[in-house]
Amino acid sequence: MVKNVADDSALKSEQTAMNAITIDCVIFGFDKGSLEVLLVQHGEGISKGKWGLPGGWIYKKESTDNAAHRLLNELTGLDNIYLEQLKAFGDPDRFPLRRVITIGYYALVKREDYNIKAGFTASDAQWYKINSIPDLIYDHNEILAYSLKHLRNRVRQAPIGFNLLPEKFTLLQLMHLYEEVLGIEMDKSNFRRKILHMKLLVELDEKQQDVSHRAAKLYKFDPAIYKKLTEKGFNFEF
Amino acid sequence: MVKNVADDSALKSEQTAMNAITIDCVIFGFDKGSLEVLLVQHGEGISKGKWGLPGGWIYKKESTDNAAHRLLNELTGLDNIYLEQLKAFGDPDRFPLRRVITIGYYALVKREDYNIKAGFTASDAQWYKINSIPDLIYDHNEILAYSLKHLRNRVRQAPIGFNLLPEKFTLLQLMHLYEEVLGIEMDKSNFRRKILHMKLLVELDEKQQDVSHRAAKLYKFDPAIYKKLTEKGFNFEF
Repeated sequence: MVKNVADDSALKSEQTAMNAITIDCVIFGFDKGSLEVLLVQHGEGISKGKWGLPGGWIYKKESTDNAAHRLLNELTGLDNIYLEQLKAFGDPDRFPLRRVITIGYYALVKREDYNIKAGFTASDAQWYKINSIPDLIYDHNEILAYSLKHLRNRVRQAPIGFNLLPEKFTLLQLMHLYEEVLGIEMDKSNFRRKILHMKLLVELDEKQQDVSHRAAKLYKFDPAIYKKLTEKGFNFEF
Repeated sequence: MVKNVADDSALKSEQTAMNAITIDCVIFGFDKGSLEVLLVQHGEGISKGKWGLPGGWIYKKESTDNAAHRLLNELTGLDNIYLEQLKAFGDPDRFPLRRVITIGYYALVKREDYNIKAGFTASDAQWYKINSIPDLIYDHNEILAYSLKHLRNRVRQAPIGFNLLPEKFTLLQLMHLYEEVLGIEMDKSNFRRKILHMKLLVELDEKQQDVSHRAAKLYKFDPAIYKKLTEKGFNFEF
């Protein structure tokens, strides 16, 4: 009896892994003002040598949330990440060998907080700048595009930056974060007016140090307002 | 060889349907000021006689979106509904016989626009008021609770009512729609001030007719503003 099973070593036995549903993780990283995505190079199987989103098969006795955390950790070394489910991607032709539906997860992290180390079936794991994404396996470019759109919607409806910026930051640093994530250019005085109007920031009695240009004021987030806006939402139009 | 397959007649053959992933649809209906949910009674299988969300197996050659529309139509007669995917529900113990992950879809419709007719494996299909939901099969009460929370978030971030209210409506009718969907009581003058401030409504030179109380002004939605707010979003705090 010939079994139509992908030659992925993670799928060792139908007793341990589900054979028609996978997980894929879109991990956005923010580093030195740049938005990046974590990709892995497949070390074996039909996609050997190609790059894709970290992901793989779900064990039969494991929740999809746990599978996402396990796979991300096995393939890239990342741990303790707050992963949020995006949706299931269910085009019948998305996987070349047979029908496989994948469930997407995503996160946005500060790159320097995490060390990356390829493992399991991945021969390499690297951060790629959002503007330099290679051709990815299967429908992974589409999943990434969907995730980026989702992230951009979220950023307009809830605050970001708490875990991405230093504890004390300038308005310009915060604006550059928004510009990079949203992929747009903003007007400094407009941004200043709108962000200060939200009462989200606390102005500190400190300025930047050791800068060659004129030192700018430092701010920090007001944790109570940040929490309230995260829960209640807002609409941030620039 | 004993195969561990659920006794659901929709799963006639592994050649035609996927055997570890299903679809479930949460259809919210609005009727005479009440929020309701469309449920089906199972006519066969392990859940015979019990009520649940309309859903079932995905054919191997059909997209998940198409499967959702097909199943909803087969079980309840509903057609031409804008279904949006919620997420996948992946608890390992959610289905009693074996590991099955389900993908949730949802919609909000005006009840009187649609005729319901049970079919396929459903012996009955009925609208249930949101406050009188029976015990449902598997994790369907949880899926419904998640969907309601999601709907309430959406209602705070984008306009609703265009397809749920008559073309011309009073502010009180619109407020009752919000109250019913959000499950809260609102203050009339607050609501009036906030909704008019959004410029979403056009005040008509007409009043209610044939009412015993004092006739109220009629309004309609401004289609351009409605479209803009649907795309751009807002934050509606009452």
